[in-house]
Amino acid sequence: MSTFTLKHVVESQQFDRELLTIVFKTADRMKADLAGDRRFRTFLNDKIMASLFYEPSTRTRFSFESAMRRLGGSVITTENAREFSSAAKGESLSDSTKIMCGYADVIVMRHNEAGSASKAADISSIPIINAGDGAGQHPTQALLDVYTIADAFPDMSGLKIAMVGDLRYGRTVRSLSYLLSKYNDMEITFVSPPVCRMEHDIKAYLDKYDVAWYEETDLARVAKEADCIYMTRIQKERFHSVDDYLEAASKYILSAELVSGMKSDAIIMHPLPRVDEIPEEVDNVPQARYFEQAQNGLYIRMALLYLLLKGE
Amino acid sequence: MSTFTLKHVVESQQFDRELLTIVFKTADRMKADLAGDRRFRTFLNDKIMASLFYEPSTRTRFSFESAMRRLGGSVITTENAREFSSAAKGESLSDSTKIMCGYADVIVMRHNEAGSASKAADISSIPIINAGDGAGQHPTQALLDVYTIADAFPDMSGLKIAMVGDLRYGRTVRSLSYLLSKYNDMEITFVSPPVCRMEHDIKAYLDKYDVAWYEETDLARVAKEADCIYMTRIQKERFHSVDDYLEAASKYILSAELVSGMKSDAIIMHPLPRVDEIPEEVDNVPQARYFEQAQNGLYIRMALLYLLLKGE
Amino acid sequence: MSTFTLKHVVESQQFDRELLTIVFKTADRMKADLAGDRRFRTFLNDKIMASLFYEPSTRTRFSFESAMRRLGGSVITTENAREFSSAAKGESLSDSTKIMCGYADVIVMRHNEAGSASKAADISSIPIINAGDGAGQHPTQALLDVYTIADAFPDMSGLKIAMVGDLRYGRTVRSLSYLLSKYNDMEITFVSPPVCRMEHDIKAYLDKYDVAWYEETDLARVAKEADCIYMTRIQKERFHSVDDYLEAASKYILSAELVSGMKSDAIIMHPLPRVDEIPEEVDNVPQARYFEQAQNGLYIRMALLYLLLKGE
Repeated sequence: MSTFTLKHVVESQQFDRELLTIVFKTADRMKADLAGDRRFRTFLNDKIMASLFYEPSTRTRFSFESAMRRLGGSVITTENAREFSSAAKGESLSDSTKIMCGYADVIVMRHNEAGSASKAADISSIPIINAGDGAGQHPTQALLDVYTIADAFPDMSGLKIAMVGDLRYGRTVRSLSYLLSKYNDMEITFVSPPVCRMEHDIKAYLDKYDVAWYEETDLARVAKEADCIYMTRIQKERFHSVDDYLEAASKYILSAELVSGMKSDAIIMHPLPRVDEIPEEVDNVPQARYFEQAQNGLYIRMALLYLLLKGE
Repeated sequence: MSTFTLKHVVESQQFDRELLTIVFKTADRMKADLAGDRRFRTFLNDKIMASLFYEPSTRTRFSFESAMRRLGGSVITTENAREFSSAAKGESLSDSTKIMCGYADVIVMRHNEAGSASKAADISSIPIINAGDGAGQHPTQALLDVYTIADAFPDMSGLKIAMVGDLRYGRTVRSLSYLLSKYNDMEITFVSPPVCRMEHDIKAYLDKYDVAWYEETDLARVAKEADCIYMTRIQKERFHSVDDYLEAASKYILSAELVSGMKSDAIIMHPLPRVDEIPEEVDNVPQARYFEQAQNGLYIRMALLYLLLKGE
Repeated sequence: MSTFTLKHVVESQQFDRELLTIVFKTADRMKADLAGDRRFRTFLNDKIMASLFYEPSTRTRFSFESAMRRLGGSVITTENAREFSSAAKGESLSDSTKIMCGYADVIVMRHNEAGSASKAADISSIPIINAGDGAGQHPTQALLDVYTIADAFPDMSGLKIAMVGDLRYGRTVRSLSYLLSKYNDMEITFVSPPVCRMEHDIKAYLDKYDVAWYEETDLARVAKEADCIYMTRIQKERFHSVDDYLEAASKYILSAELVSGMKSDAIIMHPLPRVDEIPEEVDNVPQARYFEQAQNGLYIRMALLYLLLKGE
């Protein structure tokens, strides 16, 4: 793969299977290194990562910054970037990005407006990683999600994936859908209250890539057959009344009882934070992978930083 | 002492004399290293410390982060952890801690609720250091306080300690009292306005450990005899009227005149920040140790990080 | 230059030509190192820089922190220092500084009150760098400005400098004026609306150092002759009415048309962020140096950190 180049990480769609394979193999190597005695690496000791967060997201930021440190790199960081931005003094994102290019070797950008990462990448002389841009994308989350599925099912074919909860506003399930379409014979079931159904653009995308998808409102009917149940939070503010919300929320809880009916080799995922949709007693069943999934974020982000800054 | 293990630093009471001796000897070593030409160490160059502050405390955070850096380690940091926490999205402290365990090797936690550090330690796979939890504990402050006293009085026996100011709400004097009870023949005098008297639980604890304690409202009567005067701020909001406050505040000032009557080998301490309770002219008397005390925080925190991450 | 010592960086006036030459030569060396393959240096690997920002300024902070990292040093940082300060608990700047001296090897201080850096330097045992103190000074900005001019005009004599925009409240043009007075045969033209004219103290200073200065309200008349046009933002809040503002703002725009009439070897500078006063189409003309100027901030700050912590 001497032709491989990864310049920016802007959206899930940019990753084809070949590139996914490279990212996941690199992540495997990172995981093995950290598990072994090669915890101190100096791969990136001449590199600086700028965490440019226009809105706070401590968890995502920590995951990236930990990844950079584990590779020996340095970090400069702000959760205050709006003050640095057009909003505060009328400066364009383009100008802000140009200046940052002089101070860092890679920019991890979280922005409140969809499309910001792409706009920054257009004019940046250094790699941009999109760490979430408004209602847009969160591609590193999608990558760690697929990496977690691929860890459990290395073949990555013929899987039944159930996505559960707030599918309309949930950025993660949207990005994950894009990536799953790269694999063969995937079957996706969207399980949600009517007000939170998956949007049409994603369904059209899946159709285009011949991915079978279904809609369902009853989690119990889906749990037994699924190879992977991907839970998300249902947010009160989507509902017209508190009663509607409470009814919906109670239906989309993956209770210990439901879990006991799942296949033994199935997996349970969640982008976290969770509230009530997965009770704590489920944490200890063998199918629960959500904390491992969060941990995989570290390996994926290490892999991306490595590939962007060192090449394959 | 091959049996020594320190897993977490949660509360003052967990330190017995043996452990205190180990911590203080390690701190001495850190101090000597920094004073000498071994300022650059790589002991912890494969380690990451997460500063997880649910409320800002720049001074404490800087002290810990400086300590980690001086040992060669890396830091990821937030003063914004509430956004990351249950308060913001309903996530439990337990979940937040589990995820952080994947990103760091040690967590320094400042929290607004008493008991949080202990709760986190219960489920954490990596060491937790309590950097203050609400009205609860601030054990590293208590350790640096005793370290400062022990530096002046290596025998640590038969000392007359006066604690002055707001003893009721002051976390530091409470934690210090716990630790002093580990030593022999200590005599503690609590000097405060009636509304700020030391609470009964501490007095009961001292009684249990046979520590002699007294109460006094007049600082002048105590200053001449004390080996150590531990000053604290009196806060206006504790008083019913401004007049009451002003009267009280004026009585608990360690003036140059009072200092001139102190024993020549006595010491003056203060957890800082101070306001008016120690006038600046006192800074230069030989008894003043409060800036040295703050500096000792660095050595103590270096020692704790070293012991937690490297062992004795 | 064995007699050279730089203890603090507090104000522009402290730099004489000899010192400027040393700083600029060191900056040249930093620039060459970064451009070459010596990107990883360990000069300052035993040093800690504290970014003590009493008000946020992400751009300035990033520039300093990137500089420190590029030299191998560590950083502890807050944009929250007011919480740490007298404002919050009544602690004096003097006490705060004394404590910081125990945690770091150099302090970069941004403060909302003029004179703060100087006050801190008076009692600090470690170097203080003023990163902007209210309406006072921002000496590192002035240094990078002159460094950028000197890069284009190594002789630094007989230059016609036009400063444009808000000269009354703009800290950068004031600090730059101080520094330009160190050079021979400089000619400064202040181009501003009447309400934003340069203050008398600066004019008196220039007179004292025999620097010729003029005032002008029409940018077009000045653009053709200038060797350097230093643009600044005009801020709406300085004007009595929106109409006045709009009229003024439109007159102080360096349009592509005006640029086309400039000398071919002239340069255009701006401290950034810019809004409308330089249209984006100007970015690509050879005279445009404002992004390079921002980048020069990195080299100048590396040079200062190096000189303060390692000596010449």
